[in-house]
Amino acid sequence: MEGLVKCSANHVPLSPMSFLERAAFVYGDKASIVYGNTKYSWRETHGRCLRLASALSQMGLNRGDVACDNEVEIPCFWLRGKVAALAPNIPALYELYFGVPMAGAVLSALNTRLDPPMLALLLQQLEAKIICVDYQYVQIFLKALELISAEKAKLPFLVVIRDSNQGASSTTKEVPPCSLDYDRLLEMGKHDFEIIRPIDECDPITVNYTSGSTGTPKGAVYSHRATYLNSIAQIFRFEMSAKTVFLWTVDMFRCSGWCFTWAMAALGGTNICLRNVTAKVIFDSIFIHKVTHLCGAPTILNIIAEAPFAGHRPLATKVDLVIAGALPPLEILNNVHKLGFNVFHAYGMTEALGLVTVKSLDFDQCDRASIKDRDGVHNVVMEGVDVKDPTTMRSVPADGKTIGEVMLRSNTMMLGYLKNVQGTQDAFKNGWYGTSDLGVRDPDGHIRIKDRAVNAILNCEGNAISTLEIEAVLASHPAVEATAVVGRPDEWLGESPCAFVKLKEGRTTSSQDIIEFCGVRLPNYMVPGSVVFGDLPVNSTGKIQKFVLKEKAKDLGTLCHSNGHLVV
Amino acid sequence: MEGLVKCSANHVPLSPMSFLERAAFVYGDKASIVYGNTKYSWRETHGRCLRLASALSQMGLNRGDVACDNEVEIPCFWLRGKVAALAPNIPALYELYFGVPMAGAVLSALNTRLDPPMLALLLQQLEAKIICVDYQYVQIFLKALELISAEKAKLPFLVVIRDSNQGASSTTKEVPPCSLDYDRLLEMGKHDFEIIRPIDECDPITVNYTSGSTGTPKGAVYSHRATYLNSIAQIFRFEMSAKTVFLWTVDMFRCSGWCFTWAMAALGGTNICLRNVTAKVIFDSIFIHKVTHLCGAPTILNIIAEAPFAGHRPLATKVDLVIAGALPPLEILNNVHKLGFNVFHAYGMTEALGLVTVKSLDFDQCDRASIKDRDGVHNVVMEGVDVKDPTTMRSVPADGKTIGEVMLRSNTMMLGYLKNVQGTQDAFKNGWYGTSDLGVRDPDGHIRIKDRAVNAILNCEGNAISTLEIEAVLASHPAVEATAVVGRPDEWLGESPCAFVKLKEGRTTSSQDIIEFCGVRLPNYMVPGSVVFGDLPVNSTGKIQKFVLKEKAKDLGTLCHSNGHLVV
Repeated sequence: MEGLVKCSANHVPLSPMSFLERAAFVYGDKASIVYGNTKYSWRETHGRCLRLASALSQMGLNRGDVACDNEVEIPCFWLRGKVAALAPNIPALYELYFGVPMAGAVLSALNTRLDPPMLALLLQQLEAKIICVDYQYVQIFLKALELISAEKAKLPFLVVIRDSNQGASSTTKEVPPCSLDYDRLLEMGKHDFEIIRPIDECDPITVNYTSGSTGTPKGAVYSHRATYLNSIAQIFRFEMSAKTVFLWTVDMFRCSGWCFTWAMAALGGTNICLRNVTAKVIFDSIFIHKVTHLCGAPTILNIIAEAPFAGHRPLATKVDLVIAGALPPLEILNNVHKLGFNVFHAYGMTEALGLVTVKSLDFDQCDRASIKDRDGVHNVVMEGVDVKDPTTMRSVPADGKTIGEVMLRSNTMMLGYLKNVQGTQDAFKNGWYGTSDLGVRDPDGHIRIKDRAVNAILNCEGNAISTLEIEAVLASHPAVEATAVVGRPDEWLGESPCAFVKLKEGRTTSSQDIIEFCGVRLPNYMVPGSVVFGDLPVNSTGKIQKFVLKEKAKDLGTLCHSNGHLVV
Repeated sequence: MEGLVKCSANHVPLSPMSFLERAAFVYGDKASIVYGNTKYSWRETHGRCLRLASALSQMGLNRGDVACDNEVEIPCFWLRGKVAALAPNIPALYELYFGVPMAGAVLSALNTRLDPPMLALLLQQLEAKIICVDYQYVQIFLKALELISAEKAKLPFLVVIRDSNQGASSTTKEVPPCSLDYDRLLEMGKHDFEIIRPIDECDPITVNYTSGSTGTPKGAVYSHRATYLNSIAQIFRFEMSAKTVFLWTVDMFRCSGWCFTWAMAALGGTNICLRNVTAKVIFDSIFIHKVTHLCGAPTILNIIAEAPFAGHRPLATKVDLVIAGALPPLEILNNVHKLGFNVFHAYGMTEALGLVTVKSLDFDQCDRASIKDRDGVHNVVMEGVDVKDPTTMRSVPADGKTIGEVMLRSNTMMLGYLKNVQGTQDAFKNGWYGTSDLGVRDPDGHIRIKDRAVNAILNCEGNAISTLEIEAVLASHPAVEATAVVGRPDEWLGESPCAFVKLKEGRTTSSQDIIEFCGVRLPNYMVPGSVVFGDLPVNSTGKIQKFVLKEKAKDLGTLCHSNGHLVV
């Protein structure tokens, strides 16, 4: 067709940086961030991010010609590299999510609960040129640095983030001489900096490490396009508006803060930052700042339900609470609901930029099974959510029974794993992203997640048993505090369920009792053949490390049967 | 960065067709369309659109091998061409917005108020292979066809849309033998048709003719990407949700229905279709279907305000009413507001996919000037809205006074004008879309539209006078019903304002009176030098055709002055 063109007037690479520019224009005087005594407007946040980008850019562009702090010359590099961060949910980390891409660089916010060896491992993979570290994490960072035996040139330059809300401890704490203060960095920057836009909207914007529940964390790389679209999808699915007040209970380093970082700028809403997630902070923020949304891991439900002052003041407005992960017992859910929270349950993963499906829990359903019964729906930007046979790539029948792998196709998907060609290829084989989660399709086409594929137990008929269902039964045993089921080699069945059980303090029980308990509640083939008592190995985010238990189960040797009875 | 890929798992061309696929999955049983006795669910609408796409595809792919109607062989062509439509806001037109792109083709819904000569002109430019015409418009279409002296092969194949809601008149009305019924077309289609996705998301999806207020309508071509993003922007700015019930009072042929066509599928909301916009339809729909949103030209405000039964039943819920165009007198606005409507005022144009800025009218402001004072804000997807000097391309000072041209930069922008290379080049020169509208920038950066550039009057000092301000004063004259001001050659001033005035029935006044009335309300250089009484020329959408008046003013000759007094 004649007369059609693609030019800068009608085609601009999608990037969430645009949200901040518009927020400064449309919502200039509105509060962008509140953190203790610190308060910024969107105009101020935009200005600070511009200065941050400008300063980062100067460090990259003008070798030896930059302002100095503590008489230290700041190293130089071309900044289209990576900037790492190690900080809790404070304003500086929020600013880095905009300022780093505005300098043309890529941000990787690291898990603050990593130990020095793992931190060292990730830093070596990242090869970040700069790392911005909150004063509380400087010592851990320095310990990690000691473990890296690289040439000095490859070590990241340290920027220390002080915290005026924390009093003297933040500002006087000793830091290495070869470093710069975050505030000093901003002072170096110019307010009228012209931001560096991505050449291609599929250029990377952040590296997001997985939690590593199945091994070493992998660095999922997000693009400007994917984060732009996912930010909009988040707004859409939680019906957020300019009135949204978002409390940062979800880790800002996790999946780029589930993209709420950028979504809040698109909305012109208000971010309530915090250093530690406590019941007091949650309830105070709701009453003082009129929080409308908060998100995070299931532990938040426990924190809320168990707060001594919960319920003393009824919530003035409904608050939306989005939880990703296995739900706690119904009693806790009910308590949280009664306080006035709307609870949403999400299924997702780092690779898919956070949330994939979300559902609002219906508390008119009286039991946990019904509440948990089915998964939510995918967001408006996702192109496909299906359950497929991974060998034939055909959709499994929509019979609510046949198990397949949950697969996704979406513009809100990572570009791949950093420096892991094989991992990326495996994830994207056959034109879909394989989640490694097992699910079924209900007759109306909706999907239900059964388990992580890595946790599934294959019996000799080749059927996949979901360990989640066994774990749910075990969890209802009065003596059981926590449990995890993995497969153990089995002479008859190929593999049979092996239950690892942590008992409540002061409680005792026997393997036989556990097996009988399951026997009356589960089909025969799902009853654990072995039970092991003791503590369960967990990772930095509190997730049980099933891959460790799998090894333990293997070490137990093949389960033998005599006279048709299981030998435990 | 190693390990990153762009593949079908993480990169799917953006297209609003995806919204319908998801709606069928997520909102399958929900009402998609209600039209009189006709009601469809999203699953049904998806199925019908698939059948429509399949049938269109068959017509293109299988020459001479297609089902026949009235023993007529259906002509064959490769369907990646264009399909035209001429219909009011009925379900079939809604379906065409999905079904045509799903067949890999481009839709152009034409203005139903065009006369046969203009229709013939557009049909010749479009070269559509098929045209779907509502039974009421078949005669006009056939008259237009008679005016086209092309070979038969170039004429579009006629599909007639009957309307069971209209009784026998729709089904028995005679149509040419060489045509097909729309329902028959759908029957030809297969429900499991695999839709044809765009290869590039910037591929065209619709051709949208401008209203032609400044000359012959131009065909603004929209892309899959632009319409996808604008649909989301519409949802965002009106805070729409799955509960949205949209009453189709805005022409569905105009700017692809302001992209609400596709936005409603993204939401899974309900479309209330209608044949004619009347007060009865509006109020009945609000009460029966719980309409939440309606949109359109300012005439809707008059229809609502003047309805004899308006106010008899108070609206149970607030209804959002979006108006694009010059606002009527404050009295009418107040009446509509008192009935319970939230009124939004929009500024936009066909080239930018409809709405550019939107503001909610604040009725606490007591006068029209305050309500109309400033324009709204641009949507979240727009990258830039600015007022620039078109020669230097610099932003005008943010002083609220200096007039420049309003310019836009957005992914929600047309690809260009169909078969009009020069027009496209002119529109997109300097990397921005020039709106031809005059505006100023307020100190906080917000823009205010003053007038269409084409209507501005240049006096001898080279200053631009906005005719809008003069018209606003003239409209407040008690005897004036309608008015338009254009420039007239002037011996002293270069050009001076010439007012065309239509008086209220039974009222009389003189040129001198009008000039004196303006003299006490406007600066001297803005007072009209000439006044002409009579009817005003309007186009098919009721807009005053200023280009016609400009010619008239020119025909009046150069305005002469004697002794410093104006000679009228």
